[in-house]
Amino acid sequence: MNSNGTTLRRIVLAGFVLLVTTGVRADGDASPIYGVRMPEGYRNWQLIAPAQEAAPLNELRAVLGNDIAMKAYRAGTLPFPDGSVLAKLAWKHVQSPEFEPASIPGAATTVQFMVKDSKKYAATGGWGFARFIDGKPADEAQHQTCLACHQARVKDHDLVFTRYAP
Amino acid sequence: MNSNGTTLRRIVLAGFVLLVTTGVRADGDASPIYGVRMPEGYRNWQLIAPAQEAAPLNELRAVLGNDIAMKAYRAGTLPFPDGSVLAKLAWKHVQSPEFEPASIPGAATTVQFMVKDSKKYAATGGWGFARFIDGKPADEAQHQTCLACHQARVKDHDLVFTRYAP
Repeated sequence: MNSNGTTLRRIVLAGFVLLVTTGVRADGDASPIYGVRMPEGYRNWQLIAPAQEAAPLNELRAVLGNDIAMKAYRAGTLPFPDGSVLAKLAWKHVQSPEFEPASIPGAATTVQFMVKDSKKYAATGGWGFARFIDGKPADEAQHQTCLACHQARVKDHDLVFTRYAP
Repeated sequence: MNSNGTTLRRIVLAGFVLLVTTGVRADGDASPIYGVRMPEGYRNWQLIAPAQEAAPLNELRAVLGNDIAMKAYRAGTLPFPDGSVLAKLAWKHVQSPEFEPASIPGAATTVQFMVKDSKKYAATGGWGFARFIDGKPADEAQHQTCLACHQARVKDHDLVFTRYAP
């Protein structure tokens, strides 16, 4: 009984340590290829910049960053340090029913992440990628497109498109 | 000398208390009509929602909220409690040079605030308004337009246009 209790406490402690050190939820699925899970509390992160994407997607977007990423942005640090995480939230954009010239967020579409870990993701520029739809990771085919596009277009900005909007 | 030192200490202390209790910077100007100053640290507040404004303004926008406002949004509290502050950041939107379908923030244009104080602003629905351009308040004529538009269009949402984007 005492031994079982000790074992249980160790398991609970190990789970807690894992949660704290990885900063990810124990539940939910991870992205194919990269194994990135949705980070806890990302909706409360600070704003890097909004964006709009034209047809056919027709989306409004906002890119948020965790504390490590925000500190790097504000200091102009490149490459981003390990532990930086960027979150891109996207919604269909619809005309405001209350103010005609404005487009506002409609239904949420995807939530995407970039996680910096220069050892774990050494083969992919130090970044792990993830795209979630309704809280579930998109398929492997979608995740195979991330790196090539980022490498082709923003190699000089540590593979990150979004700049800080002052 | 001693008396002067005491007086100086009292003045400094009073200024500090004012700064802490009002949450506004002692420097900078206040908006006409409402006397709203730029709140300290608003750029680090959490995101309520992005938006886009069509021609002739052609802007990308992001509305941020202080902790009191965010708590109210997440709990669905209406009217917003005293102390709620909303910040609307706006930028010209320009085509991304790196990803053609995307529009991203260009030059910053205005920063606007709504400050809830049901006593101080009893005559204007409990809200004080402010629009800043390059850190300076816009003129009185611009501030005379705020309330009428908000009252005409979003009376049922405590005069606030922006909804929380999940």
